[in-house]
Amino acid sequence: MEIHVITPIVTEGFRPPDDLAELQRPGVTLSHSSIESGPASIESDYDDVLAGPGTIARGIEAYRNGADAIVIDCFGDIAIPALREAVPIPVLGPGEVSMHLATTLGHSYSVVAVLTRVIRRIENRARLYGVHERLVSVRSAESPVLELERDRTSLGMKLGRVAEQAVREDGASVVILGCTGMLHAARQVSEHLTAQGLDVPVIEPLSSAIAQAEMLVRLGLRHSGRSYQRPPAKEIRGYAAPLLHEVAAR
Amino acid sequence: MEIHVITPIVTEGFRPPDDLAELQRPGVTLSHSSIESGPASIESDYDDVLAGPGTIARGIEAYRNGADAIVIDCFGDIAIPALREAVPIPVLGPGEVSMHLATTLGHSYSVVAVLTRVIRRIENRARLYGVHERLVSVRSAESPVLELERDRTSLGMKLGRVAEQAVREDGASVVILGCTGMLHAARQVSEHLTAQGLDVPVIEPLSSAIAQAEMLVRLGLRHSGRSYQRPPAKEIRGYAAPLLHEVAAR
Amino acid sequence: MEIHVITPIVTEGFRPPDDLAELQRPGVTLSHSSIESGPASIESDYDDVLAGPGTIARGIEAYRNGADAIVIDCFGDIAIPALREAVPIPVLGPGEVSMHLATTLGHSYSVVAVLTRVIRRIENRARLYGVHERLVSVRSAESPVLELERDRTSLGMKLGRVAEQAVREDGASVVILGCTGMLHAARQVSEHLTAQGLDVPVIEPLSSAIAQAEMLVRLGLRHSGRSYQRPPAKEIRGYAAPLLHEVAAR
Amino acid sequence: MEIHVITPIVTEGFRPPDDLAELQRPGVTLSHSSIESGPASIESDYDDVLAGPGTIARGIEAYRNGADAIVIDCFGDIAIPALREAVPIPVLGPGEVSMHLATTLGHSYSVVAVLTRVIRRIENRARLYGVHERLVSVRSAESPVLELERDRTSLGMKLGRVAEQAVREDGASVVILGCTGMLHAARQVSEHLTAQGLDVPVIEPLSSAIAQAEMLVRLGLRHSGRSYQRPPAKEIRGYAAPLLHEVAAR
Amino acid sequence: MEIHVITPIVTEGFRPPDDLAELQRPGVTLSHSSIESGPASIESDYDDVLAGPGTIARGIEAYRNGADAIVIDCFGDIAIPALREAVPIPVLGPGEVSMHLATTLGHSYSVVAVLTRVIRRIENRARLYGVHERLVSVRSAESPVLELERDRTSLGMKLGRVAEQAVREDGASVVILGCTGMLHAARQVSEHLTAQGLDVPVIEPLSSAIAQAEMLVRLGLRHSGRSYQRPPAKEIRGYAAPLLHEVAAR
Amino acid sequence: MEIHVITPIVTEGFRPPDDLAELQRPGVTLSHSSIESGPASIESDYDDVLAGPGTIARGIEAYRNGADAIVIDCFGDIAIPALREAVPIPVLGPGEVSMHLATTLGHSYSVVAVLTRVIRRIENRARLYGVHERLVSVRSAESPVLELERDRTSLGMKLGRVAEQAVREDGASVVILGCTGMLHAARQVSEHLTAQGLDVPVIEPLSSAIAQAEMLVRLGLRHSGRSYQRPPAKEIRGYAAPLLHEVAAR
Repeated sequence: MEIHVITPIVTEGFRPPDDLAELQRPGVTLSHSSIESGPASIESDYDDVLAGPGTIARGIEAYRNGADAIVIDCFGDIAIPALREAVPIPVLGPGEVSMHLATTLGHSYSVVAVLTRVIRRIENRARLYGVHERLVSVRSAESPVLELERDRTSLGMKLGRVAEQAVREDGASVVILGCTGMLHAARQVSEHLTAQGLDVPVIEPLSSAIAQAEMLVRLGLRHSGRSYQRPPAKEIRGYAAPLLHEVAAR
Repeated sequence: MEIHVITPIVTEGFRPPDDLAELQRPGVTLSHSSIESGPASIESDYDDVLAGPGTIARGIEAYRNGADAIVIDCFGDIAIPALREAVPIPVLGPGEVSMHLATTLGHSYSVVAVLTRVIRRIENRARLYGVHERLVSVRSAESPVLELERDRTSLGMKLGRVAEQAVREDGASVVILGCTGMLHAARQVSEHLTAQGLDVPVIEPLSSAIAQAEMLVRLGLRHSGRSYQRPPAKEIRGYAAPLLHEVAAR
Repeated sequence: MEIHVITPIVTEGFRPPDDLAELQRPGVTLSHSSIESGPASIESDYDDVLAGPGTIARGIEAYRNGADAIVIDCFGDIAIPALREAVPIPVLGPGEVSMHLATTLGHSYSVVAVLTRVIRRIENRARLYGVHERLVSVRSAESPVLELERDRTSLGMKLGRVAEQAVREDGASVVILGCTGMLHAARQVSEHLTAQGLDVPVIEPLSSAIAQAEMLVRLGLRHSGRSYQRPPAKEIRGYAAPLLHEVAAR
Repeated sequence: MEIHVITPIVTEGFRPPDDLAELQRPGVTLSHSSIESGPASIESDYDDVLAGPGTIARGIEAYRNGADAIVIDCFGDIAIPALREAVPIPVLGPGEVSMHLATTLGHSYSVVAVLTRVIRRIENRARLYGVHERLVSVRSAESPVLELERDRTSLGMKLGRVAEQAVREDGASVVILGCTGMLHAARQVSEHLTAQGLDVPVIEPLSSAIAQAEMLVRLGLRHSGRSYQRPPAKEIRGYAAPLLHEVAAR
Repeated sequence: MEIHVITPIVTEGFRPPDDLAELQRPGVTLSHSSIESGPASIESDYDDVLAGPGTIARGIEAYRNGADAIVIDCFGDIAIPALREAVPIPVLGPGEVSMHLATTLGHSYSVVAVLTRVIRRIENRARLYGVHERLVSVRSAESPVLELERDRTSLGMKLGRVAEQAVREDGASVVILGCTGMLHAARQVSEHLTAQGLDVPVIEPLSSAIAQAEMLVRLGLRHSGRSYQRPPAKEIRGYAAPLLHEVAAR
Repeated sequence: MEIHVITPIVTEGFRPPDDLAELQRPGVTLSHSSIESGPASIESDYDDVLAGPGTIARGIEAYRNGADAIVIDCFGDIAIPALREAVPIPVLGPGEVSMHLATTLGHSYSVVAVLTRVIRRIENRARLYGVHERLVSVRSAESPVLELERDRTSLGMKLGRVAEQAVREDGASVVILGCTGMLHAARQVSEHLTAQGLDVPVIEPLSSAIAQAEMLVRLGLRHSGRSYQRPPAKEIRGYAAPLLHEVAAR
């Protein structure tokens, strides 16, 4: 089985091969791409929009190359409904997967994000995904995304303290890390909470989305064709060829 | 006051100058643009994504040229949160404006759309806009968007019958036309309902959004900078210059 | 176009002509009346009930005199559903208009009121209007309504500080002033927030309702006759003639 | 214990003494009044408003005369929040009581009303009372309220058939009669459903509200003074004395 | 009328006869039983499950012995849906009754419980009962249930202070005591709030459920047979005879 | 990894070893048990309660024997919160897993059950699981559970037709089979929908829950200890030893 991971930014090296190697399981190949056109990181709706076309292009390409499922490597779940329309394989986002997972693991959850500016975006996604009732807070450690990789240790400690506040002050019983650039911080956050005597699961969104993609492929399930109908053929200008003519048949 | 209307498709002539002339009021200038890169019509999330960057580019351009407010000429409210982040003037979408208007004009509303495929999209937007509780149905006349202009008379009659069903069978007390390509059909739908003895307002979304934009400018209001923060400066590749460096200051 | 403003209290001079003159725009005449029977101010449901019949009477009178729309000059939206049943022109309340406006301008809003006793009333109205999901708090400056006009300067400062708390502590991204007796305080509140570096729109409800009324008249829209059916003719005792026989035809 | 029942209309004889005698239990005195100013029946918000002041006057009078609780004899729960502010004894409405009762007796309920025009009013009240999630439909037998008493037998049969539709087509597991003028129809509706093999409770709202009032008095409970604060003293014009000065102390 | 109270624990003496004698009213006999198999107290879902079969057995027994209604003596409303399926008389739980009562007595309520561990359980029940919108907090005095009876005075004071916090900090306008082992504490809590100038009703759940049971019997109402259908006959192993063959006919 | 499947009924042979063999994947051992005390099938809350203690006993036993996760083999998710309190490994129910899965695969879902009597139970679980907003209907083929295995072919056809109605009439975009006794029917239902041109995923709940359990174990996640605290030690009477003293430590 091949699961293709798309990092929807133009920053090479943001997702080192080691990261994916760690997440790869027997019987699953994790292929990877970044996008060619778009922003250096995703921190706003503005970034979402600019990352969208490149992400769709990479998704269609991956499908044509034989991928069995696609995972978007961004908590913002870039262009997911559009890509579900375009390709007949599961397309998963870390944001949606981890919010559903959190809802099943406890009766309340918080998202610990890196920027306060994402509160509106995360709250709105929780509504769209139908799981906002259990979201008790979005808290932030206020670190720009591109600095995440620079100082992983102190970030983990910072996020741990914010997660502790989410549990003690907001009543969170599950914590989601609100960025896929925190792959290694999850363990630190979890250890910090345990050290504080707080028995609270910490969800790392990218590994969760990859695992969910594998699960869907094994179950033979994909997104509903009634919800995500194939886009009608029509003239499209100003983008490269694959987008124009090659929406994959389902 | 200048209100700039962006038709987020590449189909020239979809929005004839006469249409806007009709909607223009004393003291208001309606300027207009279409986009250069993107789809020929908007009928899917796939189309939304491809129309996004071009729409933002036009919006920033309009702001730099002195527009006081921007209206997106599509019920799908293309790229609205992103554009609100990018420019410090009101940015309005016909979808959001008409759903709020409908909620205030009666205790239940239906959207009469041109394609069943938009049901998920419209329901999700109603949730995002916080007004889904009063949305009782989305019904469709099943006409592709690009055929709307070809046979306006029969479309109006078709939509009138669908609107009547929404009132009689779903309990709608207000009807929204779910496409801005129906400027002239609104009157026909309204006349059909009146002829049937149904006293139900019919909301034409483009004229409503333009009127709301004018109202906001007069009141000196624009969208919250706490909800729509200015996008952080960062490298953006693969798009033309204006998008890269010129996010407008607020 | 004539928009008739009804101040639903018996206190002469509460709404000085200057106030309305400021709000009047070219092409719009703002006429005005107070009620003859009812309370000196509106601070409770008790006051609402006593203000109701007089407000309806003034509304029917205004319609008969040619008004194109009616605006109730009280955040409590006195007798609005009843008056919509009685007259076939738009009837608008500052509470409903500003809550919808706030929902479109940001992802969360607070109402800054003058009395804590109104919390239940405002929360319940948000539910009725279908926009309670985005209401994050109702805060109060605890000033009796009739003292509002006496010391406008200090009231504005007091409200500014309360609005700041709503933003910082409750996460409000939009602020509504919860009383129409604060026409001049809105600017002060806005300036206070700006001085604090908080980019948050402040909605003054009376001017918003008048602007919305003008917009509806221009769009040719009024409230749904399915939601607000004409009251059946019947015997009514103990009130003056206009109420008894003259429910306006629609 | 004295429970005072206020029929908030001016139609003498609408509530015959026999009706209340039937509902009276040992240890409970049911006193009764109609209002002097107001409409002949309650079928609209317009009627609500005109019935309000007279209802409050009767309620204050009843409290001063020693009543232990007040029940409004109308499914529309006329002026209930205002009266709760005015008197420190329980004030109950058949609408609120029966919707809560229905929510506890089954997982879904319908209101079978006499006029379709009340749909908005009943849906809105369900929202205000916090129990709209289980309301699956409002259906109507389309009989004007004042004709209810004229032909009780055929009304009961008509309502029975409408109730049956609510159960079979809307999935109602509990039925509420949406008018207090149907005291005798409840048994017929219940018998009709039983004859159809449908084991569904039928709630008669007036007797339910009286029973709930008795229960509250016995438990020593009344409405929250935090939710229903005493109205501030102020000038009130145009109404008779009791309303002006005599808001009862709590 | 006989109302049978089941204390769903195996701790003899937890409910002294005096307690019920106090709650008994003219014309009503309160009979009582504890269960033979199950836990010593109810503090978890684990305890709920173990208390379930014994509670059903006692309920069926009580029905066969002529009880007119059954009240479960535990805020956790043990096995209530199952028992409603099994016997054709009203089956009431203090949790459900008091949450509905609170919703009618004010616009917001808090549950003051004895253990923080019950937060999930109480929030979930509020959702199931359809009244979670008005639940503003669950607070706890952190006293194990079996210690409640040992020091009633200090418990009452402790709960009073927690209730005061619920009112002042969470905005509760009604307080429910979240355990039926607090029969005598309700008065102390109420007195404490009154002494603090807080006019807030305090609901004692067991007396409320008994009163509601009496009310339902007098009104001739019981739970919907559409919602609570009789369990199909089938083999049941490992439990004593009454459960196996004697599901009471309705 | 060992996943233990508990069929919470006393009917031997209901779950043939072949069924589980089919669902077993490399690296995963599926162990299985039925319960000793309880009902022959689960069709009511009454059955739930009687199946509860035996299910907990089996779960604790499985944990002590080294299981890494537990799956309850019943759409009713018997005793799941209690078992999550009792053992520190993931405990999953097919109902909860499939409702979350459905919510992510499309914008609306229906449950196709075997008995209409389960409607209340399924709707209530959707509320508890926080995913009721997307549940558009519960439909039934009206086959008693114990007959499911007798005629698998005709059941699959019957369910296929019911699923088709859910899609066409209720707007479902995803279908869940509402019973784990339909392992082989899922393919038939899916084929029927495909033959009708309806591109709708069909979720078989048992295989989904097992796959989700495997995923959680691989991710190192289990349920929140804040939501599911360990039950306090206390006297328990009338059940066999394991339940009494051996709540597993976490």
